[in-house]
Amino acid sequence: MSKIAVLRLGHRITRDQRITTHIALVARAYGASEVIIAGERDRRLIGSVERVVERWGGDFAARFEDDWKKVIREWRKSGGLIVHLTMYGVNLPDIIHELREKWRSGAPLLVIVGGEKVPGEVFRFADYNVAISNQPHSEVAALATFLDWLHEGKELTREYPGAKLKVIPQLRGKKVVYLK
Amino acid sequence: MSKIAVLRLGHRITRDQRITTHIALVARAYGASEVIIAGERDRRLIGSVERVVERWGGDFAARFEDDWKKVIREWRKSGGLIVHLTMYGVNLPDIIHELREKWRSGAPLLVIVGGEKVPGEVFRFADYNVAISNQPHSEVAALATFLDWLHEGKELTREYPGAKLKVIPQLRGKKVVYLK
Repeated sequence: MSKIAVLRLGHRITRDQRITTHIALVARAYGASEVIIAGERDRRLIGSVERVVERWGGDFAARFEDDWKKVIREWRKSGGLIVHLTMYGVNLPDIIHELREKWRSGAPLLVIVGGEKVPGEVFRFADYNVAISNQPHSEVAALATFLDWLHEGKELTREYPGAKLKVIPQLRGKKVVYLK
Repeated sequence: MSKIAVLRLGHRITRDQRITTHIALVARAYGASEVIIAGERDRRLIGSVERVVERWGGDFAARFEDDWKKVIREWRKSGGLIVHLTMYGVNLPDIIHELREKWRSGAPLLVIVGGEKVPGEVFRFADYNVAISNQPHSEVAALATFLDWLHEGKELTREYPGAKLKVIPQLRGKKVVYLK
């Protein structure tokens, strides 16, 4: 399975800190290995994602990048596939098989998630503009559903090597064990 | 198919406005018919959800409720099923078949989504505490994935009666038609 990275566009600290944090944590929990954040540099955000990785394990990185077009150019140069999530795109059930096949046969996948205003170029730079339903809702939900369908749900039962904490699932109550 | 409502706990206006808006829009786009918000009364939030319903159609309501325990009590009295989404619960793949069967055989479903701090009672009031992976991520993503699995993805291609706007899906670009 090839690498998956998520590119978050247009981050603004005061407006987006929680939403972008959710995007980063969803990227990690749904099987991406990196989130690249374009917009205002936000060290607190990177720090909070790094603390989650340190405690809960797995291989995941978060970083800033001022020049998002460079990220896209380099991704394309390396033969990767670029998917932009937008409510105006082709609906997920109509395109997921094609995308999954390309990804499984070795194309690293860059998933672009916009903020308030997405530059029109993004629609053209993307190989696929994909909608998670053509209804207005949430970039956090869109990212989760896209990655969940791509992995056919298998990301929900992954192991996280190097974790210090692990939840022992309970029908009622909370149980967390410290692994070392 | 029985009714689905989403109960959002602990809403605070300054902290949660965007996250709770995402929760409400995800509830609508992923097949619930109501979101009930407990916490600070936030008319702007209700108004923005109502404007989405007015333009994009479908049958969906958003309302506030000061007494969230009353919502739970009444739901239980009416024979409904109560599911609380939490990273400490039973992982979705291990419980979805049982839940889907109960819901399909007629139990209205209340899905509880917490805020920062969830009172311990919620874990006991729920019939099921369900995790979407046992990793920390996002209540928005958790709600989306839960409803998506419940509907087996069919919610993404629903029609929205009464819509004034409709997206015509495009591989590139945006196309929206005005229906009346």
